[in-house]
Amino acid sequence: MSVPAGNLLAGLPSGALPARSLPARSLLDEIFTTLAETASLSGTVRIERILSTGQASPDSFWYDQGWDEFVLVVQGAARLQLEGEAERALGPGDWVMIPARRRHRVAWTDPAVPTIWLAVHIGEKQPPETPGQGEDQ
Amino acid sequence: MSVPAGNLLAGLPSGALPARSLPARSLLDEIFTTLAETASLSGTVRIERILSTGQASPDSFWYDQGWDEFVLVVQGAARLQLEGEAERALGPGDWVMIPARRRHRVAWTDPAVPTIWLAVHIGEKQPPETPGQGEDQ
Repeated sequence: MSVPAGNLLAGLPSGALPARSLPARSLLDEIFTTLAETASLSGTVRIERILSTGQASPDSFWYDQGWDEFVLVVQGAARLQLEGEAERALGPGDWVMIPARRRHRVAWTDPAVPTIWLAVHIGEKQPPETPGQGEDQ
Repeated sequence: MSVPAGNLLAGLPSGALPARSLPARSLLDEIFTTLAETASLSGTVRIERILSTGQASPDSFWYDQGWDEFVLVVQGAARLQLEGEAERALGPGDWVMIPARRRHRVAWTDPAVPTIWLAVHIGEKQPPETPGQGEDQ
């Protein structure tokens, strides 16, 4: 009867981040870990830890998802841009509820310290998103 | 086109907590704030901040919910008990996915500092739960 459990701060890279993290890394270096997932007729609710270490979305890249996503910065610092808005600076405790179809990108994450996000994907209809040019469903 | 956003650490009680918080306070003093809510045919997904300042569930009290609940301790310290288990000590970053119908209680929260939880209720079928003797649907 054990239940899924863990710690978001565990398993972080220790010491200085690798030099290749500067000045910019691709999204592909981010570490995505699914913590919990519940399927229903209305789509999957998936809770995920994202570990960023200086990554940012390429200039012309936008996520365009068919489901709502709640994001929380647990540790570190980032800048999130929603289409049509200035970048939002996010630090520990900051959260944003990104509605479905609202295009967004990660403009910056701190290259000096790991940034830990908690993301809740609500009503996801597909396997975990993969970076692309707005091709996510 | 503004979106729901905020900071989990904002609006905390400052200075020493009131003496009435010692040694135990009822659950009714906890502060529950719904941050985001998405309804679907499969029930509501509701994301909530819970601010505890020494509260604990009464000895014989168990939450018994008809939906999954993901909980994360963002700040502070608590002990969570799932039925049939020893109490789990939780600190910053610790999360637990509590399956529907798994009875659980909050055995302790730190009376000296505010404990901030993020809770994700997945597939909730009713208005926000109210404490009771396992009467939650």
